[in-house]
Amino acid sequence: MTPDHSTFPAPVYKDTVLAPLFDGVKRHHWRYQMQINFAHAVMLAEQGLLSAEEVRQILGALAGIIDGLDLDRLVYTGEHEDFFYWVEAELKAAIGPDVAGRLHTGRSRNDMDHTVFKLALKDRLAAFRDQLATLVETLITVAERDAGTIIVAYTHGQPAQPSTFGHYLGALIEVLLRDLERIEEAHRTVDLSSMGAAAITTTGFPLNRERMAELLGFSAVQENSYGCIAACDYVSAPYAAMKLVFLHLGRFVQDLGQWTGFETGQLYVPNAFVQVSSIMPQKRNPVPIEHLRLMASLACGRCETILSTLHNTPFTDMNDSEGEVQAAGYEAFETGARLVTLLTGLIAAVQVDPVRVRRNIEAACITVTELADTLVRVEGLPFRIAHEVAGGLAKAMIAAGEGPSTVGFAKFQALFQHAAGRAATLDEAAFRQALTPEHFVAVRGLTGGPAPAALAASLSRYRARIAAERDRQVAHAVQATEAAEHLAASVQLWRAGSAA
Amino acid sequence: MTPDHSTFPAPVYKDTVLAPLFDGVKRHHWRYQMQINFAHAVMLAEQGLLSAEEVRQILGALAGIIDGLDLDRLVYTGEHEDFFYWVEAELKAAIGPDVAGRLHTGRSRNDMDHTVFKLALKDRLAAFRDQLATLVETLITVAERDAGTIIVAYTHGQPAQPSTFGHYLGALIEVLLRDLERIEEAHRTVDLSSMGAAAITTTGFPLNRERMAELLGFSAVQENSYGCIAACDYVSAPYAAMKLVFLHLGRFVQDLGQWTGFETGQLYVPNAFVQVSSIMPQKRNPVPIEHLRLMASLACGRCETILSTLHNTPFTDMNDSEGEVQAAGYEAFETGARLVTLLTGLIAAVQVDPVRVRRNIEAACITVTELADTLVRVEGLPFRIAHEVAGGLAKAMIAAGEGPSTVGFAKFQALFQHAAGRAATLDEAAFRQALTPEHFVAVRGLTGGPAPAALAASLSRYRARIAAERDRQVAHAVQATEAAEHLAASVQLWRAGSAA
Amino acid sequence: MTPDHSTFPAPVYKDTVLAPLFDGVKRHHWRYQMQINFAHAVMLAEQGLLSAEEVRQILGALAGIIDGLDLDRLVYTGEHEDFFYWVEAELKAAIGPDVAGRLHTGRSRNDMDHTVFKLALKDRLAAFRDQLATLVETLITVAERDAGTIIVAYTHGQPAQPSTFGHYLGALIEVLLRDLERIEEAHRTVDLSSMGAAAITTTGFPLNRERMAELLGFSAVQENSYGCIAACDYVSAPYAAMKLVFLHLGRFVQDLGQWTGFETGQLYVPNAFVQVSSIMPQKRNPVPIEHLRLMASLACGRCETILSTLHNTPFTDMNDSEGEVQAAGYEAFETGARLVTLLTGLIAAVQVDPVRVRRNIEAACITVTELADTLVRVEGLPFRIAHEVAGGLAKAMIAAGEGPSTVGFAKFQALFQHAAGRAATLDEAAFRQALTPEHFVAVRGLTGGPAPAALAASLSRYRARIAAERDRQVAHAVQATEAAEHLAASVQLWRAGSAA
Amino acid sequence: MTPDHSTFPAPVYKDTVLAPLFDGVKRHHWRYQMQINFAHAVMLAEQGLLSAEEVRQILGALAGIIDGLDLDRLVYTGEHEDFFYWVEAELKAAIGPDVAGRLHTGRSRNDMDHTVFKLALKDRLAAFRDQLATLVETLITVAERDAGTIIVAYTHGQPAQPSTFGHYLGALIEVLLRDLERIEEAHRTVDLSSMGAAAITTTGFPLNRERMAELLGFSAVQENSYGCIAACDYVSAPYAAMKLVFLHLGRFVQDLGQWTGFETGQLYVPNAFVQVSSIMPQKRNPVPIEHLRLMASLACGRCETILSTLHNTPFTDMNDSEGEVQAAGYEAFETGARLVTLLTGLIAAVQVDPVRVRRNIEAACITVTELADTLVRVEGLPFRIAHEVAGGLAKAMIAAGEGPSTVGFAKFQALFQHAAGRAATLDEAAFRQALTPEHFVAVRGLTGGPAPAALAASLSRYRARIAAERDRQVAHAVQATEAAEHLAASVQLWRAGSAA
Repeated sequence: MTPDHSTFPAPVYKDTVLAPLFDGVKRHHWRYQMQINFAHAVMLAEQGLLSAEEVRQILGALAGIIDGLDLDRLVYTGEHEDFFYWVEAELKAAIGPDVAGRLHTGRSRNDMDHTVFKLALKDRLAAFRDQLATLVETLITVAERDAGTIIVAYTHGQPAQPSTFGHYLGALIEVLLRDLERIEEAHRTVDLSSMGAAAITTTGFPLNRERMAELLGFSAVQENSYGCIAACDYVSAPYAAMKLVFLHLGRFVQDLGQWTGFETGQLYVPNAFVQVSSIMPQKRNPVPIEHLRLMASLACGRCETILSTLHNTPFTDMNDSEGEVQAAGYEAFETGARLVTLLTGLIAAVQVDPVRVRRNIEAACITVTELADTLVRVEGLPFRIAHEVAGGLAKAMIAAGEGPSTVGFAKFQALFQHAAGRAATLDEAAFRQALTPEHFVAVRGLTGGPAPAALAASLSRYRARIAAERDRQVAHAVQATEAAEHLAASVQLWRAGSAA
Repeated sequence: MTPDHSTFPAPVYKDTVLAPLFDGVKRHHWRYQMQINFAHAVMLAEQGLLSAEEVRQILGALAGIIDGLDLDRLVYTGEHEDFFYWVEAELKAAIGPDVAGRLHTGRSRNDMDHTVFKLALKDRLAAFRDQLATLVETLITVAERDAGTIIVAYTHGQPAQPSTFGHYLGALIEVLLRDLERIEEAHRTVDLSSMGAAAITTTGFPLNRERMAELLGFSAVQENSYGCIAACDYVSAPYAAMKLVFLHLGRFVQDLGQWTGFETGQLYVPNAFVQVSSIMPQKRNPVPIEHLRLMASLACGRCETILSTLHNTPFTDMNDSEGEVQAAGYEAFETGARLVTLLTGLIAAVQVDPVRVRRNIEAACITVTELADTLVRVEGLPFRIAHEVAGGLAKAMIAAGEGPSTVGFAKFQALFQHAAGRAATLDEAAFRQALTPEHFVAVRGLTGGPAPAALAASLSRYRARIAAERDRQVAHAVQATEAAEHLAASVQLWRAGSAA
Repeated sequence: MTPDHSTFPAPVYKDTVLAPLFDGVKRHHWRYQMQINFAHAVMLAEQGLLSAEEVRQILGALAGIIDGLDLDRLVYTGEHEDFFYWVEAELKAAIGPDVAGRLHTGRSRNDMDHTVFKLALKDRLAAFRDQLATLVETLITVAERDAGTIIVAYTHGQPAQPSTFGHYLGALIEVLLRDLERIEEAHRTVDLSSMGAAAITTTGFPLNRERMAELLGFSAVQENSYGCIAACDYVSAPYAAMKLVFLHLGRFVQDLGQWTGFETGQLYVPNAFVQVSSIMPQKRNPVPIEHLRLMASLACGRCETILSTLHNTPFTDMNDSEGEVQAAGYEAFETGARLVTLLTGLIAAVQVDPVRVRRNIEAACITVTELADTLVRVEGLPFRIAHEVAGGLAKAMIAAGEGPSTVGFAKFQALFQHAAGRAATLDEAAFRQALTPEHFVAVRGLTGGPAPAALAASLSRYRARIAAERDRQVAHAVQATEAAEHLAASVQLWRAGSAA
Repeated sequence: MTPDHSTFPAPVYKDTVLAPLFDGVKRHHWRYQMQINFAHAVMLAEQGLLSAEEVRQILGALAGIIDGLDLDRLVYTGEHEDFFYWVEAELKAAIGPDVAGRLHTGRSRNDMDHTVFKLALKDRLAAFRDQLATLVETLITVAERDAGTIIVAYTHGQPAQPSTFGHYLGALIEVLLRDLERIEEAHRTVDLSSMGAAAITTTGFPLNRERMAELLGFSAVQENSYGCIAACDYVSAPYAAMKLVFLHLGRFVQDLGQWTGFETGQLYVPNAFVQVSSIMPQKRNPVPIEHLRLMASLACGRCETILSTLHNTPFTDMNDSEGEVQAAGYEAFETGARLVTLLTGLIAAVQVDPVRVRRNIEAACITVTELADTLVRVEGLPFRIAHEVAGGLAKAMIAAGEGPSTVGFAKFQALFQHAAGRAATLDEAAFRQALTPEHFVAVRGLTGGPAPAALAASLSRYRARIAAERDRQVAHAVQATEAAEHLAASVQLWRAGSAA
């Protein structure tokens, strides 16, 4: 081999990796690093591993670094490997290398980095949950308003039965409530402090891992110290959970696409969300729906991209080089925030078009199922006979271009007579009622059905569940705030020399 | 348009879809369909929607169908659209169309299909959890046995610090315990009955949805009836959770690959798992590790494939056509079962090679970190000075081809003197001890560290957590068994005419 | 370590890997292995590495193995590691170990396996291309038949302009023609023999790699011998190319879904492809479209699964363990075959519904664009004014519930007068013609447009291109057949002792 | 419904979609839009659809817009829907609405957008191909330099046979050459102009599509006009091809990881690329390799994300809303550029460590295969006997801690005598030579083997193939430059009034 006279960093490495990483820390992570520095200093002092004077100097110097920080002017030069070393250099310059060096007692960039990433994820998850809860609350509000608004419900992409807009939205609301519970589950994996794991195996110094968790607002420590810096399911868990949200929302958006199609027209999108053509004034393009669809796909893909980076990473090979991956993950939150916000705005603005709904119901004769059921219940017909009557009527309606509200009663009577061998007892008013969508909905009152009382009960339960989610969000926020205040107070005491 | 004289099914549709679907029902689903038929009949009778005589006839005919079923001879002909219609035809033949038709009161293929799929998923999830729990228990047993077995721990793919095999496995154990909790979370989404949703909106007949859930062994009903047949997060949730298991296991398998590499040799794979070459007797290929890796990738991909089918399915367009997708999902369970079983067998069989571990520790001087810490703690040196001494010693060892157990004490003394300006108080025995991996491990006793007491406490907690998982598994099994027994007893009573 | 008294194979390894792999060879690969055995023996004899007598014995024994093969009875026992070793054992039993052993001169399971997999992929690619070409030919035939059949063309999911069904299908035809070219490109990567690479580095024996390629029907050798057994882009290339076919077809299927929706109804699906409901005779569910959609998604996912297995496989770590991955890939072909076959059958059977098309054109006023263009060309109006007239007319039509064929001419005249400050020269016939879809289409005769001559020219070019694809397919088939015949003849000569 | 008094755009839509899209156009696309404006004006004039005076005014105004453009000050306000409308408004302000309006003759945002995206992709593909070709050229240069540098070649992750670094790199070079051909194939799909397709169906105005293609530097028009704005395989094709590059490079990077591991140490990474630890001076972390791995995964994921957006987009529903998707795709190019550039720099800097290679060869006895082959060729032994001798020797070496260069000749002689029943004719020098890696390599001279002449021939062919790729790159660049110059000249002539 030729002798190696090269020095770190190679310019190509600096340009393609180190400088972009440094910019990423400036953009996303530096505050969390400093938060850990403060907490670690306090904990060391509490454990007697820093003297009162040492901790006073260190905390003062840290505060000074923040005060003097000018991110715009702080350009990566390659002199310091990364932001961590830049801070260390600043500390040394301020208070001398010996005292400055003591801050790093019993820790490593490994546990610091993963703790930084967890803090960053917790903040992003909190923001996303807030956005998602707002969407759910908006959906519930719309569902309450439109609890009785008739729509056509589809299966196989074809009109199938009447329901109400509120009932339809209830299906999505339940999915999102479960999505939020899944995110809470994922949050529990993120909410475990890695501090104290040091490089891999903890340290021989008597640190207090539980105290660090408390000062940083974590619920607990992540136990196994190797796992703290290698397991990385705190990454896979939230992105897998988020991905499902985007997958599910993308499906709903495709419904919106069908429902707002010109020929279907079940849902009216107001002008504020419609792009028009200068030459085709009849053409109303609800383009936001397409944007929602592609944003959902992009957000899904961005989550999956993060999962895929773990696929070829050996278990014990996850380390501080991961800033780029974390930042790539934040793009999923960015896209997801726009998606959820736009959908919230849109869903609050759209209206069911009752004229089109009626027209489609009439054309598709989708209430005839209930007529058959009625004949079973009221006339005591066997199902087979009842279906024969209802089916025959539907065929006759379609052949004659009639609908449930216009078909002649005599046609029904004749079909009934022929099939049942006797006259129907049902009079025309009852017959006509049996074919209205309102009646169809009204009698479907089992748990989870669209009938008014059933739906009201459901919506009330959704209100309770989203309120519980809001409680969880508040609890997390309180935990973070109290920890921050507690840390600030502790810093203050140690800086003032009054902690002992 | 030319007139349509075609009749269902087109031969190409029969060959490419209907016949394969029918075979899928025979293979995976028919028992669940029959279970639902029994439960639905019982519930209808309890609700007064079937007379005692009607339910007696129906239950008898259903039992007769099962008795007469010969799956090998039951070939799809196209005469009946699917298995459901084949059963209906058999029922009609047995007890006449009017009574037979009453079984379908207030239900639809939509709610039946999704309930079938949920029952099938619950059984597969239960089996998978059992396999996974066995792996965890095996890992804990190995970790207990090897709680003190020294290994080299890696970061960046490079030897970094000593730890123990038990401690290393603890990291994986924690991940898998969280994976199991995530699957339990997903199970809750699957464990909700769709019955009573009928086609979309429930029904006007006074069914008892909660009773159906109970008879089928579900914890509760899935509330919104549209969601029951459209939401399909009972599909996305478990496959997303399973995928993470395979992603995480694949990472661990990559560690095994590195550790069993000829040059590293930290882990010995016994002959029973090694494929040899006829010409290179020294070549020991631990091929099962490669198979584990590819099985993990395939299982991941199979889960993701199922998620992807939902991506372009509008929210309200999920229906009985999904048998092929469900069957594709079961392939993930099949591959996953082989993966977990093989890994369980392998991990119980491998052994840490202590000779290679010592050699690698010596060569890589990975205990020197602790010497520096010792100098801080015992000699009261500032970190900077302690590191200078330890670093200098490491450089000297490598230059001289020495390791921590062979390096001369005088070298240390000289370096100390030079850096600290005084002689070290540490004697040779203490110096030598500070460089052993056993000492390195012994002093790392923070929560989650490898020191004996810390690790024992961790392993004890893992035992408790996997026991809790076993309790959950048992609870699910009991729920299923009791429901089946309760259903069988109810069927018996109604068939005997003694239910009223 | 405890002493290792274990023997290969561990039962768990046999059950989870070796036995399933053996079954995979029986199902997919054994003929290719034997083909290689024959070709290798012939080549060795030609190179003077086997004597005439040796090759006679070997070829005879190989033929005897095939004659005696009973796959149903051939069950994996663990006695032989795999099918290769089973063949070797049979050979040894037949002609003694020394002569039998000579067959393996200069080769390894590595080059054999990858050559087997390439032969298997070539056959599957050929079959898939044939299916796809049949689809393209069917699309061209339908496009020719419906070259003048008016449809509504959509953008943003909304009706936008008239076109013809033939023109619309032309867009898909072009995509599929490019897809086929992409598969041909991928085929070139598969069509390179790995034989002669031996384990990694070729061999010191004077084999003839080019001759092996010829005898096996490959176009050439894959050059670098390490690449022959490690590169595996012969796997990634075809599955990536196939995946795009499924991605693209899935998009088309979603169009079919929209077009056959009840409210749009532009495309009529005949009864042979429609599943009906016993209670809603008006409900026609074109369920095959949903199956096509999910089959496209599954096929996509299956291709991607294969790509993902490569993601965590180091470059030089690809080897004979890959039978399971290959078999998983064949599932993509199986699903893809059903998808393409069903789509071919469906597209030949559907019809544009002219009544619904007219109704939708009238309702959406989508011909009004051409009126504006006409006013520019015929009346010499500036665009702005022409659009004002046409836009005003569209608004008036919609307000009055009129369409292009019924709107009053006077309305147009008044709008023209008001906007242009003069009377229009266009008479009513010309005005009315400017609003017909037939006129709209007829004037759009640029390259690639729907006007009759332009479309006929396009379709003629597509015919030429699919004919060229068929020529390529024939060339590949001839290459395979001629190689097989040539190999059989060579075997015959050497067995007869007349080759020298 | 309540009356709709809303006006476009809704603030939430502006904030989440329109403003980000506008910023995307400013960042990525505005120049291409203007290029199309110039070309379209020239073509319209050539076709007589604009008068000399009209085109002069339009071209002047377009030039004025560019001259006055201040991207920093150009902030999205919602006044104009998008950049296109902003340009139109500027044009109208400059030369009046009637003349300004004529520029849009026979075109639409649909064909413009897809043409913009294709121009942008072509530029990015050209840059990426240049980066990739530089990597290939660097690999060839290193391979030429290290054509004779012995390495250990691995299979199953275990040392298997000696080869040379040049030979190993040849395997990757071939993959990348095929990758480049695949990108050229994809380029052909991108290199087709959509202009003239207008909204969907071309136009009734006599445009010249071929001329537009020429003026914009496309090789041809994309034929079917619906396909021009809907097919979007110009998106799927390049991203699928790029993804394979990243997949393949990621595999190679994993080899680098193994080869630079401390225990293997086959490849030396110079200090310029190594991050060190302050406490463990022996620890050399080649962290760039981990960054390469994660960048390859991210780039893969970013390509796949783009493919996934197409998955739920109906065929005819692809339109101008796609700016966000295109911009997301450019991230794959950005990550890919850093990946390829860093890998190029790294591969030029690493060196094979001959000391470690020898040590590993000795330890693993990987030359013994050739001894067996030698005994077959020189001593005329049957394979079985030759393998018995060589295998016995290997076992004896390992038991005695010897290697091929140190094992006693007498041991060989005794084993030979015992197995063959006679003394070996091979003398010690020949025996010793048969076990050297140099001899092992030298005799492996089949096509694609590592022997000097064979490898030199391969490398020479690679040189020719990358030169051919460079020729293709130059041809594409010349095509683009000439088209730009031709367009500029045409613009000049029309502005000067001298075009007629």
